[in-house]
Amino acid sequence: MIDLRSDTLTRPTAAMLDAMFRASVGDDVYEEDPTVRDLEQECASRFGLEAGLFCPSGTMTNQIAIKGHTEPLSEVICEQTSHIYLWEVGGIAFHSGASVALLPGDRGRVTAAQVAAAIRSENVHYPTTRLISLENTHNRGGGSCYDWNTLTEIAELAKRQRIPLHLDGARIFNALVATGQDSREYGRLFDTVSICLSKGLGTPVGSVLVGSQDFIRKCKRIRKVMGGGWRQAGYLAAAGLYALENHVERLADDHRRARRLAEALETAPYVNFVLPAETNLVIFRLRDGLTEDRFLAHMNEHGIKASAFGPQMVRFVTHLDVDDAGIERVLAALQTVQQ
Amino acid sequence: MIDLRSDTLTRPTAAMLDAMFRASVGDDVYEEDPTVRDLEQECASRFGLEAGLFCPSGTMTNQIAIKGHTEPLSEVICEQTSHIYLWEVGGIAFHSGASVALLPGDRGRVTAAQVAAAIRSENVHYPTTRLISLENTHNRGGGSCYDWNTLTEIAELAKRQRIPLHLDGARIFNALVATGQDSREYGRLFDTVSICLSKGLGTPVGSVLVGSQDFIRKCKRIRKVMGGGWRQAGYLAAAGLYALENHVERLADDHRRARRLAEALETAPYVNFVLPAETNLVIFRLRDGLTEDRFLAHMNEHGIKASAFGPQMVRFVTHLDVDDAGIERVLAALQTVQQ
Amino acid sequence: MIDLRSDTLTRPTAAMLDAMFRASVGDDVYEEDPTVRDLEQECASRFGLEAGLFCPSGTMTNQIAIKGHTEPLSEVICEQTSHIYLWEVGGIAFHSGASVALLPGDRGRVTAAQVAAAIRSENVHYPTTRLISLENTHNRGGGSCYDWNTLTEIAELAKRQRIPLHLDGARIFNALVATGQDSREYGRLFDTVSICLSKGLGTPVGSVLVGSQDFIRKCKRIRKVMGGGWRQAGYLAAAGLYALENHVERLADDHRRARRLAEALETAPYVNFVLPAETNLVIFRLRDGLTEDRFLAHMNEHGIKASAFGPQMVRFVTHLDVDDAGIERVLAALQTVQQ
Amino acid sequence: MIDLRSDTLTRPTAAMLDAMFRASVGDDVYEEDPTVRDLEQECASRFGLEAGLFCPSGTMTNQIAIKGHTEPLSEVICEQTSHIYLWEVGGIAFHSGASVALLPGDRGRVTAAQVAAAIRSENVHYPTTRLISLENTHNRGGGSCYDWNTLTEIAELAKRQRIPLHLDGARIFNALVATGQDSREYGRLFDTVSICLSKGLGTPVGSVLVGSQDFIRKCKRIRKVMGGGWRQAGYLAAAGLYALENHVERLADDHRRARRLAEALETAPYVNFVLPAETNLVIFRLRDGLTEDRFLAHMNEHGIKASAFGPQMVRFVTHLDVDDAGIERVLAALQTVQQ
Repeated sequence: MIDLRSDTLTRPTAAMLDAMFRASVGDDVYEEDPTVRDLEQECASRFGLEAGLFCPSGTMTNQIAIKGHTEPLSEVICEQTSHIYLWEVGGIAFHSGASVALLPGDRGRVTAAQVAAAIRSENVHYPTTRLISLENTHNRGGGSCYDWNTLTEIAELAKRQRIPLHLDGARIFNALVATGQDSREYGRLFDTVSICLSKGLGTPVGSVLVGSQDFIRKCKRIRKVMGGGWRQAGYLAAAGLYALENHVERLADDHRRARRLAEALETAPYVNFVLPAETNLVIFRLRDGLTEDRFLAHMNEHGIKASAFGPQMVRFVTHLDVDDAGIERVLAALQTVQQ
Repeated sequence: MIDLRSDTLTRPTAAMLDAMFRASVGDDVYEEDPTVRDLEQECASRFGLEAGLFCPSGTMTNQIAIKGHTEPLSEVICEQTSHIYLWEVGGIAFHSGASVALLPGDRGRVTAAQVAAAIRSENVHYPTTRLISLENTHNRGGGSCYDWNTLTEIAELAKRQRIPLHLDGARIFNALVATGQDSREYGRLFDTVSICLSKGLGTPVGSVLVGSQDFIRKCKRIRKVMGGGWRQAGYLAAAGLYALENHVERLADDHRRARRLAEALETAPYVNFVLPAETNLVIFRLRDGLTEDRFLAHMNEHGIKASAFGPQMVRFVTHLDVDDAGIERVLAALQTVQQ
Repeated sequence: MIDLRSDTLTRPTAAMLDAMFRASVGDDVYEEDPTVRDLEQECASRFGLEAGLFCPSGTMTNQIAIKGHTEPLSEVICEQTSHIYLWEVGGIAFHSGASVALLPGDRGRVTAAQVAAAIRSENVHYPTTRLISLENTHNRGGGSCYDWNTLTEIAELAKRQRIPLHLDGARIFNALVATGQDSREYGRLFDTVSICLSKGLGTPVGSVLVGSQDFIRKCKRIRKVMGGGWRQAGYLAAAGLYALENHVERLADDHRRARRLAEALETAPYVNFVLPAETNLVIFRLRDGLTEDRFLAHMNEHGIKASAFGPQMVRFVTHLDVDDAGIERVLAALQTVQQ
Repeated sequence: MIDLRSDTLTRPTAAMLDAMFRASVGDDVYEEDPTVRDLEQECASRFGLEAGLFCPSGTMTNQIAIKGHTEPLSEVICEQTSHIYLWEVGGIAFHSGASVALLPGDRGRVTAAQVAAAIRSENVHYPTTRLISLENTHNRGGGSCYDWNTLTEIAELAKRQRIPLHLDGARIFNALVATGQDSREYGRLFDTVSICLSKGLGTPVGSVLVGSQDFIRKCKRIRKVMGGGWRQAGYLAAAGLYALENHVERLADDHRRARRLAEALETAPYVNFVLPAETNLVIFRLRDGLTEDRFLAHMNEHGIKASAFGPQMVRFVTHLDVDDAGIERVLAALQTVQQ
């Protein structure tokens, strides 16, 4: 099977697996796992920040950051289709008791002007705006990337208003590779970044939250109460270190492959529109005659899995386990779709 | 001063005060205040429901209802400028740990189709849709009223999906008087209604939540934890009973007066637009040359208070303490605004 | 009926009622009710603190204070039978997401040594101790009073550890009258005091939270989200002002009457023990042959109501509506109890 | 170093590591990891329950269970030194908004009579008792085991009162091995059991919550919001399967070694008392002349680590990485302690 459902589905390469099982480990609750420490430090310094916290999922790193930045009676500004709001089980309200101000983005990307207008004024009827959260690349926006100017403007606004700025970087390496931005510069703009290792980078499990020393110390207690205090996690951390070394630059291949799929879909008679494929996600809408279920069944018959993404909508994701030959097979299957 | 800032600002009439003074009271935490019981029963039966709960504010009745209908990991569907979301300090997240699905309404009113599209499907990433909440009249929508068809369609959808339906009836009597709808029919559509007595009805303090016997029993505990278990509240309840008897029909006068103000504003050269004045709220936008602060200062010089309602926006509210002579004074002041 | 169930059951005197209905009022959400402001200021200055907040109940003032002093992942130190823990519906967890460290008190009173031992050390497994809360007089402890030395020692510990100290003063005036302590000195020990007006003081509704200007400003938003933002509350505030002027010193009568009841019970053959009656509460245990239900039924036949207070336990409360003649009737009824 | 601080500190054996390395994995969020599924099923059937949920820590499995069984305004009955209350960062309040009723146990073990007395009656002032949670073996109680009669009595009470019963089985296999109880019988008594794999069983990471199919389905969403939705977790699950097969019976060795340490300590002149060493924990109190810090420093000089466990208290834990030779070294070091 060629599995285009998600880049979370990848299995470790033999070399990554080898790195995992040679890892030095210890009890991370006692802060004694050297490989976890190395991974946390490596992530922090790559993003120009002081400290890191290794967690079992990106939902945990995001929700810990939100909890750490806010308090009950706070409000979080985010895009209306952002992962933290739409796909994290209402965690902003659940964990943090915080309200949300939801902005309509351009493929998930918001502007400084939108953010400025959403900051609540001082009023006994209002929660207090305590966090701005961006997502880059933006999943629902089809893997869209923020340009540096927009990020800088929002960061300047946030600093002026003394509101922390968080980045959901579930696919931040895709953004970095696609735009050529320097990850170390991110630390000057963002207070915290959630970095996912188990999507494009191909590790089995894990995300790292990076931020200041003080903030990460506070987050360690939040991780503990959420049940993220794990023990000999170094086996998983070793996969992360391997991936940072070996799997970042190759994301360009995933992007090139996604573009090929997008180009084919743009001219397919049964496709209504395709979101610009900036990175490794291809989101498209089928014309009304063809339901997403029928389309997916056709692909499945050709040994290809993909995800429904709303009515008439489909998402393809390219990743480590899909090579050029796989793309050819997908292209062939796309040729034979019955409208 | 003529105070058009809000209908919450009214003071009791002499007759209402007299009714309060003569009330029989008891300790309502022991369920021994006869006047509170009468008020709760009167409100319930007026809305075709079984039981009522008298509370210090509409924020409390709304938030208790939301808490009672939901549980953490729930989601509440409401309009994006609804009072429960915008002006209740993020209480949905704070008290209930519930997420919100925010719909863009037509002057605050949503359709059954919008609601249907916002119901979350079964998915481990999603909160569960557990409440639909409407607001009638809609404050931010300029006192707009729902038509009966829309209410019925939404109620049928809610029943089909087994999702409770709540009404924020902060100004429900304005809606009833304006549309001629029968309050008793509301109980067939809504599971709970929050009724405010201290706005158009003119009492000093209080709102009543009405619903089924079982639900209200559950809510009594929620009221207790929120600190709404009060003692000899019958003095305030007596004002509510008086108002239900004497202050409902006269809301038509407030509506007539609001329309007069709206008509004058519609032709004023310094006004950009006026929302249709269906009830007792008049919301309008000033042309760009004239800021809301300057406009309000002018009114203030003429002994008239009103509220800023966002950039360039102003709200007038007519109520018990503003008579025709007061309206004439406002109209005169509107004549002399310098653009 | 003579109602000894609670001092919350009192009805206003004619003079208090008169003061209520002559009150000047305004919309307290707009901070325009002059009588509410006067009451808040009067309470604050009586307790040597800066500002006050008038709320519908003591549960609300306590829970607002707890919320204001803590944040999620905090722990509150209190006595194991304190009202805030035992009878406020688990509000500490519900509103504040805070854990509790429960100390066994001597009739509800804890020592500085007990408090010191309960302060959590810095450890990723622990919540952070963020509040110490005392109750004076202590309800479950039978109206017991703290001596000044103990209060001072706990306050010094709290200051040293930078942990706020709150007083649940539901019956603080009983304590002041019984001990001769000066209320103004309380402000030097406590960060916040919750003062109840509807118990011994005899008003229909209301409690006041006093504290620093900054803290009370923060609490106003918490009151709003809890639904305690009421409008023309001045009618109720006027009762509070009247009671502070006229009903404090007379609490000595309630205490004298409670002692008379306690003395009679101490020698009654069907009584196991009586807690020392320091103020207006008399808590006693019936010998095993006589259940609390049968005892209460006997009293009821003689026109006297009282409360069961646990297995074999009964509570009598003296208050404004029970005079010496009433006490004589109770004493007579106690003579005829069948064991 | 011989590390007696905790049984969480073990590193996988070569054979366990080999089993991990050869595991079949998939994306567990998609429910496609076969090894995770096998582990969950194996744990469920061992405890006579239907389904399991693999999580990164015992704090997560406990807190998910508590959340799943309760709702806000609930109360949880547990022992006053239980791990869920004392060492999970106040998670009961944080995640579940639930209050706690804390019972004083006999080395952590409570009786059915104590539990019965702690169940709250129906009263608007009270939270509702929604969960009883036991811990077996009990950590703070020195690894004490429940006898079957007590468990049965509590379970019968719980069923009669329709209150769910949860077991924190962080060290349940130690209890099973020590008492000879049959794990399959546990499913008849308990609604849910949290089983830890990374303590005595020696895996790197993970706990499994077992319960009914319906309950575990509900818990999957709670795990997701807490950030426990991990991807290719099968590598860790494989260690669990290996441990269940190979590391249960050997716990008897840990218990034998713990008893040897306890016996030595019982006669040591510098020891005040030793809790009965029923399983793999040895908790003892030093005489007043010798602080825990000085004792631990002495041990450290002899290459032995242990934990302070309160003032004058020390805990030794035996586990997979401490063999008989290690115990000899500890015994030798204990001989030379200076009082």
